[in-house]
Amino acid sequence: MSQFHMTECIRKTKMRQPLTAEEIHAMVTGITDGTVPDYQTAAWLMAVCLNGLSDSETASLTMAMRDSGRVMSWDMLDGPVADKHSTGGVGDKTTLILAPVVAACGVYMPKMSGRGLGHTGGTIDKLESIPGLTTALLPTNFLALVRQAGFAVAMQTGNLAPADKKLYALRDVTETVNSIPLICASIMSKKLATGADHILLDVKVGSGAFMKNDADAAELARLMREAAKADGRECTAVLTDMDRPLGRCIGNALEVREAIEVLRGETGSSLGRLCIALAAEILRMADKGSIEECTKLAEEAIRSGKALQRLAKMIEGQHGDPRVTENLSLLPEAGCSRQISAESSGYVSAMQSEEIGRACVLLGAGRMTKTDKIDPAAGVVLSAEYGDAVQKGDPLLTMYAATEAQLDEAEGKLRAAITVSPEQPPERPLIHAVLSD
Amino acid sequence: MSQFHMTECIRKTKMRQPLTAEEIHAMVTGITDGTVPDYQTAAWLMAVCLNGLSDSETASLTMAMRDSGRVMSWDMLDGPVADKHSTGGVGDKTTLILAPVVAACGVYMPKMSGRGLGHTGGTIDKLESIPGLTTALLPTNFLALVRQAGFAVAMQTGNLAPADKKLYALRDVTETVNSIPLICASIMSKKLATGADHILLDVKVGSGAFMKNDADAAELARLMREAAKADGRECTAVLTDMDRPLGRCIGNALEVREAIEVLRGETGSSLGRLCIALAAEILRMADKGSIEECTKLAEEAIRSGKALQRLAKMIEGQHGDPRVTENLSLLPEAGCSRQISAESSGYVSAMQSEEIGRACVLLGAGRMTKTDKIDPAAGVVLSAEYGDAVQKGDPLLTMYAATEAQLDEAEGKLRAAITVSPEQPPERPLIHAVLSD
Repeated sequence: MSQFHMTECIRKTKMRQPLTAEEIHAMVTGITDGTVPDYQTAAWLMAVCLNGLSDSETASLTMAMRDSGRVMSWDMLDGPVADKHSTGGVGDKTTLILAPVVAACGVYMPKMSGRGLGHTGGTIDKLESIPGLTTALLPTNFLALVRQAGFAVAMQTGNLAPADKKLYALRDVTETVNSIPLICASIMSKKLATGADHILLDVKVGSGAFMKNDADAAELARLMREAAKADGRECTAVLTDMDRPLGRCIGNALEVREAIEVLRGETGSSLGRLCIALAAEILRMADKGSIEECTKLAEEAIRSGKALQRLAKMIEGQHGDPRVTENLSLLPEAGCSRQISAESSGYVSAMQSEEIGRACVLLGAGRMTKTDKIDPAAGVVLSAEYGDAVQKGDPLLTMYAATEAQLDEAEGKLRAAITVSPEQPPERPLIHAVLSD
Repeated sequence: MSQFHMTECIRKTKMRQPLTAEEIHAMVTGITDGTVPDYQTAAWLMAVCLNGLSDSETASLTMAMRDSGRVMSWDMLDGPVADKHSTGGVGDKTTLILAPVVAACGVYMPKMSGRGLGHTGGTIDKLESIPGLTTALLPTNFLALVRQAGFAVAMQTGNLAPADKKLYALRDVTETVNSIPLICASIMSKKLATGADHILLDVKVGSGAFMKNDADAAELARLMREAAKADGRECTAVLTDMDRPLGRCIGNALEVREAIEVLRGETGSSLGRLCIALAAEILRMADKGSIEECTKLAEEAIRSGKALQRLAKMIEGQHGDPRVTENLSLLPEAGCSRQISAESSGYVSAMQSEEIGRACVLLGAGRMTKTDKIDPAAGVVLSAEYGDAVQKGDPLLTMYAATEAQLDEAEGKLRAAITVSPEQPPERPLIHAVLSD
């Protein structure tokens, strides 16, 4: 290969000239090992934000970032291996439901996950609200648990796509986060490094999501699927609504509770229906049958209690108390709570999920900076969902926190986030689109 | 003022939203004192390159950069004070001619100048080819010399617009040099800090210049004049041709020699005519009369020998040997030389000045990196100018260097840089446009 010059890469992207896969690989290597200085990377990132990257450049970037660290393999497992990623939403506890469901149907899901930041939560934080549970697993224990329970959830380490860790830290302070090719490479480099054959992407779209409209979400989904394809993986993307929180609970232990309730059979809710649909997409990729057959398999895994047993096994394997699956009162409970009621009769016509997520941070359920402590019991339980009819004085939601002061702080934001209107709002499907082969 | 956030400035420029003068001032302060990290500055610079800045943002940036260091004042002088800037060309020795001419006409020119880099030369390097001459002057000596000779040329120090020094170093390694608003701010922050009331800008346009076409050159000239106006200075911009080298000599001592020849009265050449035109523009700004009257004043300053006397005084004041103005053989002379002749008869139809400048670097006359040593005697003397008729075998130019190897290295490049064609090429004026009040 000819000598690598970062300035040449910057110049090309600035002039809308394509970078070769070799150039991108050399650049990512230099970024990872520190030989490319941050200021050059920052200039390139801004050029990408403003000029974009081609599909093949995006795929090359994703692959180069995947190869910047450890790339896992699950050849030692005797069945199909799937992974799932959500672009981040408010009240999104689908992993806690999906993973045990597909595990009960014979699909392994060795899951690497992260903590929450800002108004969106993280699966690791949710699981850690279960007494005793740890996500810091040794590789050998992780593998043994995946074999036994069918799934496990470990904290993602810096070893996986370290280039993304570096790039993300820089994007965060240079206003270069919201570039679809960069988001694709960030997500997919980690997904591909995790080594699953079948990848389900849950691309959130709406006011509470990173992608504000269907067009952007579809473009991100398309790019991510292209990158997966370039790496020989099967990938289905589902665009799901985030103009409202997902389900009724927001907050770590509250979301674990709601997930367990779904796994206990309460699948009639929008959350339950979404999880079954997502699980069916994974099962279909893993050749478990047609989408109708896979939907039935997922439903049966819940009805039979097998999915809940898988969750209990996983919790036990990660040193948590598995009895929470039978006794929800073992989950941490908040010292203070307060109800917010409807000030007029009508229909719930808007639920600003981003604002609800931010209010939950004020209640102690999330963190604004990486070092903030989380209160596992804090959060919000919605009494009504989008489109529901309410009478004046009916409860809209209940807030949970450690102190009355936190409730005071969050109340105004929550009141403003929910609109009750005289007219019934239009129906809005939870699934906007499914992109699959 | 509200708290300054660099990310907010980056975001605004990225989204094509205007920055306030206050934000720009705070940003430049942060860049200068190091509290804004380089990677944030680099991201902002790339956003400027791709999205531009408004006229008022450019003026604010220029002013903020001017104020990042010492701002000079010449109130102690009893006459008008002018400054001149060239955007950099090949064979551009106009300062060496202009300054003594206007000084002889009663206009002070306290000149801060820099070294050359790449294919363009610098006034400091040219002057230092005069035996003994120094440009490292103490402020008091500089002022005394300006009073006595009417002009002096000192090495520009880091004290003048230090923000530009920082920004330029970063632009140089992040492919963010060629932005017209950034070029304007870089040039004008230093010019305004130098404190002259009347500023003449020589904006080079053509293949050998930074501005490749008239439109870009005119835009840069317009922005620079706006910035000067915003600071209450008078500013005239002259767009001059750089599709050919300026004059016949390229190389430090060779250019001093050519400048002295013009000051001795050889004003019929294109170089001589240009210098008189530029001098007249300065004199007109300094209220010395109409442009016709000022042209006559400039011509008379040369004819009478007064301008040459000013140069001798300045050389003596800067510890050089003033006898060079009478005896050109006191200038350093190269050990090796070689002529290049026309391979066919016709007209000189193209002289690629950038390539000629690069060939001069190979001969030892310039530097590719800041630490390269310069050979003051090296360079090229053209025997024919653009449009001249030549016969096969007629000399086109003579190369000068310390070694035959250097001549060998430069010869091919020089042969390729000059085209002799059967047809007479169209006439091309040396002055493309004059922008003045």
